[in-house]
Amino acid sequence: MFKKILYPTDFSDVANSALDFIKQLKEAGAEEVVILHVIDKSSLDALAMYTSKDFLQIEKDWEANAASQMSSIADELKEAGLEVKVRIENDIPFRGILKVEEDEDVSVIVLGSHGVSNIQEMLLGSVSEKVIRKAKKPVLVVKR
Amino acid sequence: MFKKILYPTDFSDVANSALDFIKQLKEAGAEEVVILHVIDKSSLDALAMYTSKDFLQIEKDWEANAASQMSSIADELKEAGLEVKVRIENDIPFRGILKVEEDEDVSVIVLGSHGVSNIQEMLLGSVSEKVIRKAKKPVLVVKR
Repeated sequence: MFKKILYPTDFSDVANSALDFIKQLKEAGAEEVVILHVIDKSSLDALAMYTSKDFLQIEKDWEANAASQMSSIADELKEAGLEVKVRIENDIPFRGILKVEEDEDVSVIVLGSHGVSNIQEMLLGSVSEKVIRKAKKPVLVVKR
Repeated sequence: MFKKILYPTDFSDVANSALDFIKQLKEAGAEEVVILHVIDKSSLDALAMYTSKDFLQIEKDWEANAASQMSSIADELKEAGLEVKVRIENDIPFRGILKVEEDEDVSVIVLGSHGVSNIQEMLLGSVSEKVIRKAKKPVLVVKR
């Protein structure tokens, strides 16, 4: 039931608390974890407006940063005895997550989540709420 | 991690799909299930408006019906080798669920959920969305 886990992360504290939970899921039969980070190009665009740096450079830095954070998460999970696969996607976060859910045919999605944090999320729902609504597989929501 | 499960049910199809999942959670270490049904008196009030039956009678019928459905769910879980506790609460559903989460100090809440089904839910969030937001323990959302 927890054999192949999809673990989407934005590297936030909340996503990290899900990571601790996933390590414990080994006892419950977890074997493999697909670690996913979705880079939202539209927020890169917004960032590019406020800096003099070259847009392509920002994108490169972002990707390099993501790759390094992903590899330390991967190490942590490997140490816990889990197989690991790393994916970085360019997409709108919730759409990227649902795409990889299908691609990888995972057993469950494990998400970190806090309460609602701003007005936009109250109106439109957070990334996790959208994933919970649209996912086909069970979603395990870990609280901070 | 899944030792003591809170399973809130409104006896819908969606809640039933969570039941099948819970039976399988035994392999993942589940031992005890608290089955919870919350009776919302305000919907009983609404019902009473459209019938000539006595209000107290409606309430009694409702409770008797809930008790009988709960006991067949309890039997099903016992057959799967799980310990069972049954609770029927009078409250607003999401609030009753969160209250029992605390009371019983459960390890996880397992909820059935479908997509959003009506405008009110789109605006205010469904019971499951409120529980996911406010719960302290992990919430496992099982899709239909």
